Amino acid sequence: MREFVPPAARFVGLPAGFAMRRGGRLNGARIAYETVGRLSPGRDNAILVLTGLSPDAHAASHPADTGPGWWEAMVGPGKHVDTDRWYVICLNSLGSCKGSTGPASVDPGTGEPYGPDFPDLSMEDIADAAAHTVRALGVDRLACVIGTSMGGMSALSLLARHPGLARGHINICGAARALPFSIAVRSLQREAIRYDPHWNQGRYDDAAYPERGMFTARKLGLMTYRSAREWEGRFDRARIAPEVRAGDDPFGHEFQVEGYLEGHARRFARRFDPNSYLSLSRCMDRFDLGESSGTTTDEALSRIQLEKALVIGVESDILFPLRQQRQIADGLTAGGTDVTFLALDSLEGHDAFLIDTARFGTPVAKFLTVL
Amino acid sequence: MREFVPPAARFVGLPAGFAMRRGGRLNGARIAYETVGRLSPGRDNAILVLTGLSPDAHAASHPADTGPGWWEAMVGPGKHVDTDRWYVICLNSLGSCKGSTGPASVDPGTGEPYGPDFPDLSMEDIADAAAHTVRALGVDRLACVIGTSMGGMSALSLLARHPGLARGHINICGAARALPFSIAVRSLQREAIRYDPHWNQGRYDDAAYPERGMFTARKLGLMTYRSAREWEGRFDRARIAPEVRAGDDPFGHEFQVEGYLEGHARRFARRFDPNSYLSLSRCMDRFDLGESSGTTTDEALSRIQLEKALVIGVESDILFPLRQQRQIADGLTAGGTDVTFLALDSLEGHDAFLIDTARFGTPVAKFLTVL
Repeated sequence: MREFVPPAARFVGLPAGFAMRRGGRLNGARIAYETVGRLSPGRDNAILVLTGLSPDAHAASHPADTGPGWWEAMVGPGKHVDTDRWYVICLNSLGSCKGSTGPASVDPGTGEPYGPDFPDLSMEDIADAAAHTVRALGVDRLACVIGTSMGGMSALSLLARHPGLARGHINICGAARALPFSIAVRSLQREAIRYDPHWNQGRYDDAAYPERGMFTARKLGLMTYRSAREWEGRFDRARIAPEVRAGDDPFGHEFQVEGYLEGHARRFARRFDPNSYLSLSRCMDRFDLGESSGTTTDEALSRIQLEKALVIGVESDILFPLRQQRQIADGLTAGGTDVTFLALDSLEGHDAFLIDTARFGTPVAKFLTVL
Repeated sequence: MREFVPPAARFVGLPAGFAMRRGGRLNGARIAYETVGRLSPGRDNAILVLTGLSPDAHAASHPADTGPGWWEAMVGPGKHVDTDRWYVICLNSLGSCKGSTGPASVDPGTGEPYGPDFPDLSMEDIADAAAHTVRALGVDRLACVIGTSMGGMSALSLLARHPGLARGHINICGAARALPFSIAVRSLQREAIRYDPHWNQGRYDDAAYPERGMFTARKLGLMTYRSAREWEGRFDRARIAPEVRAGDDPFGHEFQVEGYLEGHARRFARRFDPNSYLSLSRCMDRFDLGESSGTTTDEALSRIQLEKALVIGVESDILFPLRQQRQIADGLTAGGTDVTFLALDSLEGHDAFLIDTARFGTPVAKFLTVL
């Protein structure tokens, strides 16, 4: 069980005995974060970025780590999220494996990695740990919380649980509650990992590792992160060149789309902790802002107090379909927030915010200009 | 390796040395079929039904087997495909495991089941075997070929390879070529089976059987056969009652949608031969009416000679998306066929033709009335 900590990550410790909503406490837990830009003397220019399931805190390059971040095209000096003006904090979610405490971290109580004994993770825990981190960095009021994908869930949870912590919000391809199709996708991904004999009830190591399960989980993920139309344009029915086809397996890969999935799966499988994947995946399924607020989802959204919000979805997103972003926009509007809702027709599906930054950048920049 | 032959199935033998398009020959091969209704003295009222991947030849009840068929609501006396007028032939595809020769059948050359040594199957083989069966039943010209899902592929192949064999055609949720999203889905389904340790390179038996792989393949299939919206209406976020939840697996099934997938998978896994699944799945990937005709798909469609065709697709189908039925309709129209194209807004996705027969029935009946 390994953690994959970006080189410039810094850390905020969570309070001893950090209480997890579904039971259990964490001691010696920490959140990995990076910042780009400078906090203003008035401490009023901070933007928090909450990520999807797999990214780390390195959203963009900065002097301490000049390597490109996962949202490099969006965040930086003069870019859409302009770090000449904004102080951008990006953090790795609690439960992940990229510097923040999660199943791959050492449990100080035992001196061993938590592994499958990591407490039951919830989106509210991720949100609370993020709120603690922001305050520990000296920020009592964020100008904006940006949440993408799963980060759109944790952002809503943070806004609901920490009123006043932010005045603006950008929700990108997010959701206020998990729906059955995405639950089914994630359930299958978890089964692929859990039924890999090397998963061994969560007690694997680098030598006996559930690699095949992680391959399947990642491939299935990619199938829901992108769109059928994008693949038609990219691959159509192109074949893998015979000289690079692996072996003589009669059912082996034959089409380029199969090779593409395989390549992505191989790059991912050993760079994300399987127990962490299971924890984050299940906590997404269980997320419903309404359930966790003891009311309906719409009512819980309307209780969130913000000045302005920008909610963006993509027509071709099958994992977090557009009706979910519309629900967020309608709910926030009902609560009095000044909401801009955008349905983009990017071809790239759920992942469009990572790729089609030409289309996402302008509305984000425009929103931040008048924030 | 077992075959699952419906009780009233009858058989047509294929010619000795039946040549498979990708190499290999079959001896002693047969096609299982059932008929409903009576062939007219002029032999001009025959309708051939070609099925999707998993159905058998028992499309509808009839005196020899009064159990409901897989298209019971559509086919029968006074129904949309009215067997008081039409003589309906439904057959099990070559390569399947429900009476027609496939990997689970005994190879007369060895006395053992073919298993993984079954010759490389193509859609054209399925079509040629179907054409042979029709002629063996004394029908030289079909009034209509109805193809659903994969049957929409084999029907187009039959029409292209056997000009004059049919004057009408109904293509339902079919495609003239496989596209990368559906190839990716099927590739993952095949991997789930092939990487199940019990698959054993295709040499499993009932005791050591790739059940887990078949579960995954079926679940993934269901996710693409139905629609996210249908599941939102049916399941939303309903939980499985705690008293029926299996065991205390911390990552076990929690939501009703997970229980639904599991139930379907369990009903399917032992009733379909895994090698047959692999063969049919790959032959769908490889199907392109253009490639197999040495031209473009559109041109190949336009060469098909028919009097009338009805092409139906469903807005919510993600496996055989509507643009594929539109391509069929446009291609046939370009060749001079009188085509009716219908885009239905059924909620049930690709499987709508099996469920939403209220919506499918009327246009099918209307088409057949004027055929």
